[in-house]
Amino acid sequence: MEPLVGSLRERATSSCSCRTLQSWFPVLSWLPHYNLRWLQMDLVAGLTVGLTTVPQALAYAEVAGLPVQYGLYSAFMGCFIYCVFGTSKDVTLGPTAIMSLLCASYMGSDPVYAVLLSFLCGSIQAAMAILRLGFLLDFISYPVIKGFTCAAAITIGFGQVKNIFGLKNIPQQFVLQVYYTFHRIPEARLGDVVLGLSCLALLVSLTWMKTDLVSPSPEHPTYVKVAHGLVWGCATIRNVLVVIMASCVAFSFEISNHHYFTLTGQTAKGLPPFKPPAFSETKANGTIIYFKEIVLVSTQVFTLLTKWSQNGYRIDTNQELFAIGLTNIMGSFVSAYPVTGSFGRTAVNSQTGVCTPAGGVVTGVIVLLSLAFLMPVFYYIPKASLAAVIICAVAPMADWRAPLQLWRVRKLDLLPFMVTFLVSFWEVQYGIVGGVLVSGAMLLYHMARPHIEVHDHGVLVMDLDSGLNFPATEHLNQVIYSQALHVSPPRCVVLNCHHISSVDCTVVHELKDLLKQFRLRNVSLVFSGLKNSVLEVLLAGDLPGLKYTDSIETALQILSGNTHFD
Amino acid sequence: MEPLVGSLRERATSSCSCRTLQSWFPVLSWLPHYNLRWLQMDLVAGLTVGLTTVPQALAYAEVAGLPVQYGLYSAFMGCFIYCVFGTSKDVTLGPTAIMSLLCASYMGSDPVYAVLLSFLCGSIQAAMAILRLGFLLDFISYPVIKGFTCAAAITIGFGQVKNIFGLKNIPQQFVLQVYYTFHRIPEARLGDVVLGLSCLALLVSLTWMKTDLVSPSPEHPTYVKVAHGLVWGCATIRNVLVVIMASCVAFSFEISNHHYFTLTGQTAKGLPPFKPPAFSETKANGTIIYFKEIVLVSTQVFTLLTKWSQNGYRIDTNQELFAIGLTNIMGSFVSAYPVTGSFGRTAVNSQTGVCTPAGGVVTGVIVLLSLAFLMPVFYYIPKASLAAVIICAVAPMADWRAPLQLWRVRKLDLLPFMVTFLVSFWEVQYGIVGGVLVSGAMLLYHMARPHIEVHDHGVLVMDLDSGLNFPATEHLNQVIYSQALHVSPPRCVVLNCHHISSVDCTVVHELKDLLKQFRLRNVSLVFSGLKNSVLEVLLAGDLPGLKYTDSIETALQILSGNTHFD
Repeated sequence: MEPLVGSLRERATSSCSCRTLQSWFPVLSWLPHYNLRWLQMDLVAGLTVGLTTVPQALAYAEVAGLPVQYGLYSAFMGCFIYCVFGTSKDVTLGPTAIMSLLCASYMGSDPVYAVLLSFLCGSIQAAMAILRLGFLLDFISYPVIKGFTCAAAITIGFGQVKNIFGLKNIPQQFVLQVYYTFHRIPEARLGDVVLGLSCLALLVSLTWMKTDLVSPSPEHPTYVKVAHGLVWGCATIRNVLVVIMASCVAFSFEISNHHYFTLTGQTAKGLPPFKPPAFSETKANGTIIYFKEIVLVSTQVFTLLTKWSQNGYRIDTNQELFAIGLTNIMGSFVSAYPVTGSFGRTAVNSQTGVCTPAGGVVTGVIVLLSLAFLMPVFYYIPKASLAAVIICAVAPMADWRAPLQLWRVRKLDLLPFMVTFLVSFWEVQYGIVGGVLVSGAMLLYHMARPHIEVHDHGVLVMDLDSGLNFPATEHLNQVIYSQALHVSPPRCVVLNCHHISSVDCTVVHELKDLLKQFRLRNVSLVFSGLKNSVLEVLLAGDLPGLKYTDSIETALQILSGNTHFD
Repeated sequence: MEPLVGSLRERATSSCSCRTLQSWFPVLSWLPHYNLRWLQMDLVAGLTVGLTTVPQALAYAEVAGLPVQYGLYSAFMGCFIYCVFGTSKDVTLGPTAIMSLLCASYMGSDPVYAVLLSFLCGSIQAAMAILRLGFLLDFISYPVIKGFTCAAAITIGFGQVKNIFGLKNIPQQFVLQVYYTFHRIPEARLGDVVLGLSCLALLVSLTWMKTDLVSPSPEHPTYVKVAHGLVWGCATIRNVLVVIMASCVAFSFEISNHHYFTLTGQTAKGLPPFKPPAFSETKANGTIIYFKEIVLVSTQVFTLLTKWSQNGYRIDTNQELFAIGLTNIMGSFVSAYPVTGSFGRTAVNSQTGVCTPAGGVVTGVIVLLSLAFLMPVFYYIPKASLAAVIICAVAPMADWRAPLQLWRVRKLDLLPFMVTFLVSFWEVQYGIVGGVLVSGAMLLYHMARPHIEVHDHGVLVMDLDSGLNFPATEHLNQVIYSQALHVSPPRCVVLNCHHISSVDCTVVHELKDLLKQFRLRNVSLVFSGLKNSVLEVLLAGDLPGLKYTDSIETALQILSGNTHFD
């Protein structure tokens, strides 16, 4: 399946007039070639993803602190819009655990804010996409992503322990939550605990079954293949199976008047109304919310971008941003809260062999049907079973090997990881901000203090092992002064500029001063291995006494003949 | 004179136990060697600088919108403190035009705020110095400095035109100031205009005389040498001469009851009281003022650092920061407003042949004597003469060749210049902030989008012309996908890593994905010219299918033998 999008894109780029249109509406590149086999595969994949989406959407609404129907309200718009505007066949937009956690931390369970947040996020994302600002996301590094997802997974997962225990009124802040959850274990409801742990056990075993499943070879008898297909199917739609089973158990106890389980309870019925979000509520905390949105937006998109490369093709960052932005804007008209690409459901989509984004339409229809007809049934879903669904969904994100890997590969990268991880526990939305600032500072520090190797070949040869941008001039000056100019007698220096790809005016200005100091002391500074583009800038800078050679050897020969030549 | 500080420093570093002490108290490195010849030179230089300091301090207080005595209050503490803690023999701390302009824009002419500002700035600077954060100043680039000084010089210079015209109640904002100054020219006072223009003409001709002055050779007769010395001396202390002459003229008219000139008027008498600054006023705008201080601090220090390298030795940024910080903290106890190193007076100090920072003590004593005994005389100083002093002091800073030079050397550097220049006119303190942000963004963009040259030698050879940090991975991926993986058939790639000096975990992680994609398509990605340190990180990253060679040629030989080898 992998080369598909690639080849479609190629074909798209072959005709120049359609190219722009196709890059804005990727649907145009695959719809003309749509065929019956693709439809078949898309139907199966869409159905499977739909059956995963419904229980997850209900569960994530709980994470966001919203009534369960808001999860479904948010789950269908993305399916239709991504079908037209998305560049990847696998990605599924909808409510996710991390986004729900972020929303919860912002809006204090008020659906009106959640919907408004969706509109604002969408507008910012669409604007960024149109202004081609997607490259800003390149500044979120791998350690920051890992630190954030680990912390979020732990926060979200632990946040559901209270539902497994059937506890109510636990504060939201992580530390307090841990404290009160353990403190109030004696109040746990037996029914919830038993049901929750059973659901967890079932989900874990189904996941394991799928992992260990060996594909049958063609020579196996048919019943083996059918059995394999059945196990694989059950394991894939395990979320909905577990929730249905738990609901049936809860229903049978409820109708016999035994209230052992905490249930979802009454929900709004039917489809959400189509109406613009309520803008009047912005006034209270106008400016502050904008900054928070930007944080949200970046989080939303990085979750989408991470790991999609594993599916074998590159997605167009700006176009994806645009698709998510539009989904959030349109979503706010149907009472959705902010959505993004879901790791888990995208993986399911890919594994069931989806061929085009049209699979999303099937998923969207299933969500709409659930909203239209199944809401009364959702009354009986036990909260403990949804908690089990969430815990199993986020557990793989808490990647405990990540810090070990960072330690092994490059210890310094543990710093942004730890900052992101720890700050996320304090205030989840600032984790990424903190991490990005730390890794940005590390980049800039590295730029300001490049490694300069000094060799003594009679004259000093200084090797700059990376570029020479303006923040590095002070450091270069300091090394040259301390090693060549502030010693007696002053020494000649050959500066090996082999690795320098560009210089700026600050560098030129400092070099002018430096050359003057060398002249005053009757010694020489020779540049070797300058690239043409760099040499042009230096010549334009009109540096008196500029000397340059092609290689260090030539420079050494000239200088060794006459170490005090002028 | 130049090698002096250098050789002193060497001697200082020779004894290891004293080194730390001497680096905190640089006075210890020169005081033991103090001699009569140095004393003689320092006395002359200190006296000359003192005679420049007094009129400038009075004038700059006017720029800051404070009563004139505050200029003198701010001018002596730095002389004594720098003598003990400073690392350069030439630098003179005291009120400067730019700092006065910055202060004026913050505190709206209230001396209490000015003194408090001095304390806060000093504390931040001292803290930065102790935490070794001086390297942050490396991020202020030459175009930003130039843009800021040009804008500040124009703002300050034009701000004095109203005093030449004898106009009052002109608004402070630059655009309004220009409008109202021209609008109200008909109200100009003839006496002020004539006196101001005369002072300006005198100052300009004395400056020219000094520039064109040819040093007498030893064979010239004594009277030539004396005449030369006299002209040189008059030109050097031209500020005080002009102010004295103007005051004499004003005094003679005043006592004959002809009030033609706007005078400085009544000032406080005597030395300032020694008392802590008034902290109670902070409460009102607590948080906002802190950000502003940081801006002020950076401005203060960059003015100090720029161009001192011309004096032939490097100063220790952190130690200088500490000296300025301490000056500002102690200054706030004697009602000083924030000070920094003065370009002009430092140049005078250097030209008169100062030997050690002890020259500053003489300057400080002169300021104190003026405060103690001369205040009643200052009543008669015409404001127009002070305006002329300021205009002549700031004129050289408005370097109109700077943008031309940037255009010639590297056109892109005009962007931070123009941003700084224009923002400075709008709000002077945000000019530098804007410029630093723009040049920082340019650096980061350059880092995120390195130049990748692609050559086709049967297999693709990609040359990375600078380092490979995490923001660049997305771009590298995009180039590799579009040129090698999303084409049919997929192609082998040799990545020339010759210029890469370090990689981080994000890069390793992305390369892992990339290698997987190459394997899936049965083509190869070969790294050539890896440095040992980089190779170690890649090996620690445990990349399956990592292939590397020493040179591109070897890589090409291997790949051309078998373009689909595994």
